[in-house]
Amino acid sequence: MHPDPVQRGGPSFSRRNRLARLGWKICCALFFRPSPRPFHAWRAFLLRLWNARIGEDAHIYSRAVIWAPWNLQCGARACLADDVEVYNVAQISLGEDAVVSQGAFLCAASHDYEHPGFRLIAKPIRVGDRAWIAARALVLPGVTVGDDCVIGAGSVVTKDMPAKSVCAGNPCRVVKTRA
Amino acid sequence: MHPDPVQRGGPSFSRRNRLARLGWKICCALFFRPSPRPFHAWRAFLLRLWNARIGEDAHIYSRAVIWAPWNLQCGARACLADDVEVYNVAQISLGEDAVVSQGAFLCAASHDYEHPGFRLIAKPIRVGDRAWIAARALVLPGVTVGDDCVIGAGSVVTKDMPAKSVCAGNPCRVVKTRA
Amino acid sequence: MHPDPVQRGGPSFSRRNRLARLGWKICCALFFRPSPRPFHAWRAFLLRLWNARIGEDAHIYSRAVIWAPWNLQCGARACLADDVEVYNVAQISLGEDAVVSQGAFLCAASHDYEHPGFRLIAKPIRVGDRAWIAARALVLPGVTVGDDCVIGAGSVVTKDMPAKSVCAGNPCRVVKTRA
Repeated sequence: MHPDPVQRGGPSFSRRNRLARLGWKICCALFFRPSPRPFHAWRAFLLRLWNARIGEDAHIYSRAVIWAPWNLQCGARACLADDVEVYNVAQISLGEDAVVSQGAFLCAASHDYEHPGFRLIAKPIRVGDRAWIAARALVLPGVTVGDDCVIGAGSVVTKDMPAKSVCAGNPCRVVKTRA
Repeated sequence: MHPDPVQRGGPSFSRRNRLARLGWKICCALFFRPSPRPFHAWRAFLLRLWNARIGEDAHIYSRAVIWAPWNLQCGARACLADDVEVYNVAQISLGEDAVVSQGAFLCAASHDYEHPGFRLIAKPIRVGDRAWIAARALVLPGVTVGDDCVIGAGSVVTKDMPAKSVCAGNPCRVVKTRA
Repeated sequence: MHPDPVQRGGPSFSRRNRLARLGWKICCALFFRPSPRPFHAWRAFLLRLWNARIGEDAHIYSRAVIWAPWNLQCGARACLADDVEVYNVAQISLGEDAVVSQGAFLCAASHDYEHPGFRLIAKPIRVGDRAWIAARALVLPGVTVGDDCVIGAGSVVTKDMPAKSVCAGNPCRVVKTRA
C-alpha cells in the first residue's frame, strides 16, 4: 500500500498500532464474530473494552468490520449492519439513531498520490444524528454527513452532504430536501 | 436496523419468519455452500424444499446468498452467480434464461425514512426473460427489469428499465436500444 | 453463466483450464490465504509457481482473489490489496508501483449478449506504472489505465483512461490532469 522509494517495504503504521490491531482481530475472531445476532450489548461491551465510545442500545452486527475500535464513536441507538466496513484510520463518529446499512464502506484513509512515497492520509468521517447511509454506499475521507441526511444505496460520497437532505449518485449529490 | 422510539429494540420480523430463516441458514451452511460447483440440481432441490420455485436447469452457484428461499422464483435456465445477494424480504423473480452475475445485489427492502420508527419497506423485484444483471450491479426495491434488458456492471438501478435495452450508470439509465 | 440453447449445460472453459484452477484454488486455501500479512515474498513465490510473472518486492495481500495466476503480470513493487478481485480470464497486467486498493474489481470477462449462447468474451486489462485504482473501483474488460493515472474509489471504468490524469465516476471520466 506504500510503494515508497524512500521507505520501501516499511509499514504505514507504528508497531504499537499494528500490535493493537492484531489484538483486536484475535478478540474479534474469538468473541465478536461468533456472537449470536441479538447480542448487541455483548458486542458493545467488547468494543468498549477496546476504547470505542458506544452509546446505549447501539446495534452493531456481528459481521461489521471495524479497523480500530479506539477510533469509533457511536451515538445511542446507532446501527452498523452486517458487512459494513469501518476503515477508521482516523476517527469515525456516528450520531444518535444513525443507521449504516449492509455493505456500506466508511473509508477514512486515502493516499497522497502526489507524494513520491504515496503517503497515507487519514481524515475523520462524521455521520449526523438520524442520518442513514444506505446499502453499499461509500463515504470518503473527511466527509461529514449532516443530521437527518439520507445517502442512497450505492452512492459514492466525495464531499459533505447537508442536513435534512436526500442524496444519491456517483458522485453523490443532493436529490431533494426533506421537510 | 430499526431505531424506533416506539418499539425500540423490537425486531422487524415475526418470530416465525426469523425461525424459518435460521433453519434455512443452517441448511445452507451444511448442504448448500459446501456443495461442489457443478451440483446445480442439488442446490435447486434444496431451495425447492424451502418453497422456492426454481425452473428446470437453473444454475444457482454455491456462494449465492438467498435471504428467504420462499420468496424466490427462478425461471428455467436462470443463473445466480457466486456472491450474488438476493435480499428478498419481498418476492424476487427471475425470468427464463435471466443471468445475475457475480457480486450483484437484488435488494427488495428499504426503510421509510419519514416514519419515526424508520419502518422497513419491502417491494418485489422482477427480472425479465433473458435479462442480464452484470457484476456488482445494485437493483433497488420495486424495480422491474424488462425482458432482454442488459444492466451494466456496477450500475445502481433505481427505477424500471425497459425491455430490449442496454442500461448503465448510477443512477442507471438507458444507454442504447437492442435490435 | 451460459444459458445456451445450443450447448446448454456445457461449461465455458476447457477441462484443462478447470483442473488448473481447481489446483490453484486448493493451493490458495492451504498456503496463500493463511499466510501472515507481511509474507509478500512467499505469496509471490506461490504465484510464480503457477506461472504468474511477479516483479521484485510486489505486495500481494493474502485476501486478494486471483482467478488464474498464469494470466497475471505484476511489475516491481506493485500492490494488490485485500479483497481485490482479479478476474483474469484474459491477461491482467499491472505496471511498476501500481496500486490496487481494497475491494477493487479488475474484470476481464463479459458476455456477448447478442449471441444466442451468451458467449463469454475475455479482453485484457492493463494498469500503467504508478497508476492507482482506489477502493471498490470496477475496471471492465479491455480497459487500459495509463501511467500515473488515479481512478477514484467506487468508479466504474468502461473505457481507456489517459496517463497522468485523475478520473472518477460511473461511468468513469477524467476529472483533472496531473502536473
